Amino acid sequence: MEQVTLKSIASELGISITTASKALKNYPDVSPKTRKAVIDLARKLNYIPNSFAVNLRTKESKVIGLIIPEIVHYFFSNVVNAIIEYAEKKGYLIITLQSNESDKLEEKQIELLLNKRVDGILISLSNNRKDLSPIHKIVESGTPLVLFDKISKLINCSKVIINDRDAAYAATEHLINTGCKDIAHFRGPLNPQNSIDRFLGYKKALEDSKLHFDKSLVYTCEKVSFEEGYNFAKELHQSNKKVDAIFAITDLVAIGAITYFNEANVKIPEDISIIGFSNWFMASVISPSLSSVDQPGYEMGKKAIKLLLKEIKAIKKGKKIKHKTIVLPTNVIKRSSTRD
Amino acid sequence: MEQVTLKSIASELGISITTASKALKNYPDVSPKTRKAVIDLARKLNYIPNSFAVNLRTKESKVIGLIIPEIVHYFFSNVVNAIIEYAEKKGYLIITLQSNESDKLEEKQIELLLNKRVDGILISLSNNRKDLSPIHKIVESGTPLVLFDKISKLINCSKVIINDRDAAYAATEHLINTGCKDIAHFRGPLNPQNSIDRFLGYKKALEDSKLHFDKSLVYTCEKVSFEEGYNFAKELHQSNKKVDAIFAITDLVAIGAITYFNEANVKIPEDISIIGFSNWFMASVISPSLSSVDQPGYEMGKKAIKLLLKEIKAIKKGKKIKHKTIVLPTNVIKRSSTRD
Repeated sequence: MEQVTLKSIASELGISITTASKALKNYPDVSPKTRKAVIDLARKLNYIPNSFAVNLRTKESKVIGLIIPEIVHYFFSNVVNAIIEYAEKKGYLIITLQSNESDKLEEKQIELLLNKRVDGILISLSNNRKDLSPIHKIVESGTPLVLFDKISKLINCSKVIINDRDAAYAATEHLINTGCKDIAHFRGPLNPQNSIDRFLGYKKALEDSKLHFDKSLVYTCEKVSFEEGYNFAKELHQSNKKVDAIFAITDLVAIGAITYFNEANVKIPEDISIIGFSNWFMASVISPSLSSVDQPGYEMGKKAIKLLLKEIKAIKKGKKIKHKTIVLPTNVIKRSSTRD
Repeated sequence: MEQVTLKSIASELGISITTASKALKNYPDVSPKTRKAVIDLARKLNYIPNSFAVNLRTKESKVIGLIIPEIVHYFFSNVVNAIIEYAEKKGYLIITLQSNESDKLEEKQIELLLNKRVDGILISLSNNRKDLSPIHKIVESGTPLVLFDKISKLINCSKVIINDRDAAYAATEHLINTGCKDIAHFRGPLNPQNSIDRFLGYKKALEDSKLHFDKSLVYTCEKVSFEEGYNFAKELHQSNKKVDAIFAITDLVAIGAITYFNEANVKIPEDISIIGFSNWFMASVISPSLSSVDQPGYEMGKKAIKLLLKEIKAIKKGKKIKHKTIVLPTNVIKRSSTRD
């Protein structure tokens, strides 16, 4: 079946397109009889007004665009759930775009959202985002923007984050306080700020405890995957380097390492302590259960959407906006993969 | 900053809106000088053409809408990844909407996608979808639609599915072939077809092996969650019912059950065998590793988007479409949570 247009409705009723359009918009200069005829026919033919007309009428799309690097991620799933839940209560729909950590795809998605004239945009940046001009473009377009988790400090907008450096410091400190001295780090990629900050927190904790920082104990996970955790644990084990603990960039990587050590009959935490990051629910299910840093994904999503809707409202009222950066607290969850 | 309109560009240059619009669309009846002035100013002001105009020009939005019940789900994550990957190669963007298993929200999302005039729609229905009229509406609007995984047979469109009944039959048969006789089922909600089909496959396997079907051994997971698996395992264990195996609707539910039995020192598979469904990667990581039914999420996503793009292309060429239903094969993966 072809898509029904206003033109076809008008021509079927023998009236002008303008009259048909006015009838659907409830303009007073159309007779009740004509209005009824147009509405009845539009219903019968299942006419869908185009989004431009709808936008023009309401001046709002009631749609928020959300771009995240990946949704398979437990942390982002919690963020997305919180955002959808809160937005729905306030009458907004969320369209989610997954950049798959590709800055090129992310750029196309930003363009799409701006073209669709969404009321606001939420982004957690892809790991490969170096050129910030597409993000600046959002700000310049006047579309409210809130960045969360993976952000750039150089963008003039509101942000919701955790303090990755402090959180990583606390995780490493927990290893040191439980007697570990040769601590490896399975870090994230070199570009994203949160991966840099976690590395710096790890390094600072070593320095503050007068422990030697050995860069050969730092392994870089490009994909932050289970497999990388497994393979680096194997590499480390077979290298005969002196190591008594690992701080992993995420729980997924840590679980990969645990899986290898379980297979290789290396005792956790007696022979090696492991701590992850994000407190995925599987952390408490795995054997041994995984110590981790609790990263409040649900809370972060909720704060981000609340902040965005507040800014949308303020802009609509012509008020000036003062951008905010909200830093959420994290804490170390001690389980069986680290010593008492 | 206010959003730049074609009107403001035209008025700044002292030309008509029509001329400005024609200049941006490269119409030949605008002088090269005027065209350059318009394009330069549009660039300088960061003008974003509205989506209606873009649609009118290209007659295609190059955007596909995807509605899924939840993205935290490992299976759906794989589906989404496959869809995004393939679509990107073909020049399409995917906007994902998560219905959170709410038929009301799903309905709003369908309306949004139709209003935005996406080129096609992919849906895995929410568990609560009873009224099919919003889905029929998509078909009637002429927008190509492919349903996958959670479908309704009553909708006239292409579908990509697995045979849930056969897959559940095979899972139950594996339990029977390894000596189990009193097999419980942690089933999904009562409404969705795949949950019904898995239950029927389980029941049929019992009947074909002349085993007694005891409905008191069937527990209904409303949310299909880890917690339900844990709690039903506890309930079952404390009830003193005679049970030597559980077939769980998903791996997540099965892992909940394993976690309880591990805590309660019930030996798996000696005292109780457990088999899950979907073959989540955690199934091989958990202890004991979980037998499961492999559900090809990535393959399903790829087939669904391929089918949809094929239909979009055919419609554009004015060809008649013959809807297809693709049934993907599944198989039982044997691990340590069931006997040899």
